[in-house]
Amino acid sequence: MRLVLVAGTTETAAEPGISAAGADPELMRHTPGADLDIVAHGEPTLAPVVPVSPTGCPTPAVMTRAARELLGFDVLAVDAGIAGRTGAPTVDVGDGPGADVREPTAVPGAGETYERARELGGALPDDRIVIGETIPGGTTTALGVLTALDEEPAVSSSLPENPLDLKRRVVAEGLDASGFAAGDAAGDPLRAVAAVGDPVLAAVAGVTTGAVESGTAVTLAGGTQLAAAAALVRHAGVDAPLTLATTSFVAEDDSAGIAGLTDSLGVDLTVTDPGFDGVDHPAMAAYVAGEAKEGVGMGGALRLVGESAASMADLRERIVDVYDRLLAGTESSEGTPEEPPGGAGTAPEGEP
Amino acid sequence: MRLVLVAGTTETAAEPGISAAGADPELMRHTPGADLDIVAHGEPTLAPVVPVSPTGCPTPAVMTRAARELLGFDVLAVDAGIAGRTGAPTVDVGDGPGADVREPTAVPGAGETYERARELGGALPDDRIVIGETIPGGTTTALGVLTALDEEPAVSSSLPENPLDLKRRVVAEGLDASGFAAGDAAGDPLRAVAAVGDPVLAAVAGVTTGAVESGTAVTLAGGTQLAAAAALVRHAGVDAPLTLATTSFVAEDDSAGIAGLTDSLGVDLTVTDPGFDGVDHPAMAAYVAGEAKEGVGMGGALRLVGESAASMADLRERIVDVYDRLLAGTESSEGTPEEPPGGAGTAPEGEP
Repeated sequence: MRLVLVAGTTETAAEPGISAAGADPELMRHTPGADLDIVAHGEPTLAPVVPVSPTGCPTPAVMTRAARELLGFDVLAVDAGIAGRTGAPTVDVGDGPGADVREPTAVPGAGETYERARELGGALPDDRIVIGETIPGGTTTALGVLTALDEEPAVSSSLPENPLDLKRRVVAEGLDASGFAAGDAAGDPLRAVAAVGDPVLAAVAGVTTGAVESGTAVTLAGGTQLAAAAALVRHAGVDAPLTLATTSFVAEDDSAGIAGLTDSLGVDLTVTDPGFDGVDHPAMAAYVAGEAKEGVGMGGALRLVGESAASMADLRERIVDVYDRLLAGTESSEGTPEEPPGGAGTAPEGEP
Repeated sequence: MRLVLVAGTTETAAEPGISAAGADPELMRHTPGADLDIVAHGEPTLAPVVPVSPTGCPTPAVMTRAARELLGFDVLAVDAGIAGRTGAPTVDVGDGPGADVREPTAVPGAGETYERARELGGALPDDRIVIGETIPGGTTTALGVLTALDEEPAVSSSLPENPLDLKRRVVAEGLDASGFAAGDAAGDPLRAVAAVGDPVLAAVAGVTTGAVESGTAVTLAGGTQLAAAAALVRHAGVDAPLTLATTSFVAEDDSAGIAGLTDSLGVDLTVTDPGFDGVDHPAMAAYVAGEAKEGVGMGGALRLVGESAASMADLRERIVDVYDRLLAGTESSEGTPEEPPGGAGTAPEGEP
């Protein structure tokens, strides 16, 4: 088993109010690279930030890292077009950041990215992969792709109040700019991604297709973005069994409509509740309040904990550890700017 | 502890007879990417070959992978300019392959590569790193750098009969093409690398410098190439303690002169004998006959086994496993060309 994390960016995230995957749009550029760094090393090494929402809710990379420290699984980071830096080693399949979906073409290299990712997925020496994403603005591009494919336009959000009207308007303008209407790309997944998607969707669909073609079982780890990737795989004619593992926070989000969407795509849905309710900790309380909800493979990481001998209580303890180390690193680097975050002085005890 | 493997290429390797790090010069281009793949995944996934010498001696990546399966240490692969493909995730610090040392400039981006690597080394969250290399032709560029720095011109070889005259002639022509004489780059390590080195030397020196500056202990894992990197670090004014861990095959190679070189550089030398003598196995017998000798961090991997509770007998057993799986993968892919090596059907049992 290996966790595959696909990271990238879309200029769509620069639209004010559309994403909470960073403290502000400028810092949000660094979120994907920082997420990979955190899952790989326990803290940002070359990425300059610890991603938090505008209200301070920490990235779901914290939860995935905690699960990794608990279970010790391998991670493969895939760069589909990150904008910032990362100290995590990556396999590169992309052609740089995606454009705003309101440009005529959002992902010019969608086909090449898909094919490179498909080859990678086919070459992985694993019986099973669990695949997640990190891309701010990704729920909007997922809505774009689902709309273009004529699938249920489900959309979750990293914000407690999903800015649905804004997302729908951006997608409508994106379809318009690409010169086609909702449903026009049905059966042509790469056209949908190129027009109104993002490079991470192209890469997740490619890795998934290549993996199932070579007999590797695939668990999609995430919410509506991973469901949109599943839709792309289905529209590419792949009918292999797929499972989507998401968090209870996405499953309880009515706007996400994840159960109906996975059902219509013939994808098995598993939902894991990490038991954050009533826990007196700022990171976990923010999730209970509806922030973040999912991302960086969190739903799949929770699923792996559920399949293991470890308990959710073990995971919550480890989340506190990872969170405390990340904050300590941030404070330390602010106090001593000559020492980069991730220097030897902040080495995590739990590095697997 | 983390094993850092720096991979790259130099056109110098295309000189006939200068390196045995590949079956022929064309296949040799793929050796660094394949070596990273083998250490990461147990077999080439996106790289198209299992590297062997012209006589069939397998790459030392087999030994390092076997040690990794035995001990379970983390690996960070660093791309300083590989030419072929790899399925191993990498952090990129380079500007592409190095030119032939007989060009006026062998590594135009030496300074940038060194600085990016130095930043990476400073950001690693480890108390200790062990750093190795994979670059065909690298002993010749190491000889070039040692000569330019006015250090002892030690040089080992992946061939049983070290082609010393050829290497010295190539280095002399390289110095001439760069317009300076032996010793002219003393105290100016980046000038030495740019003129007659390779991008891996720049990156190894950079990671090492950044690591020791941030308090991380560094073990250089290899032979004369890692000693040349140590010379670069010393000429950059870094006098921190350094250890070079090499194999008994390099230590017994008089042309390598590794003891004298490390002594003059103020570098501690440790030598590990994996006990291949008298073992009836083609891979190990080739090393006893003087092939390969070192590479892909082999000396450091042996050192780590020596420091652990595992025995060299455990390692030798695991080497047979890794070797048999690699050959099985190669034969299987020849028989069924539609399935890439590394497909699910050849998943290694021992994947850590």
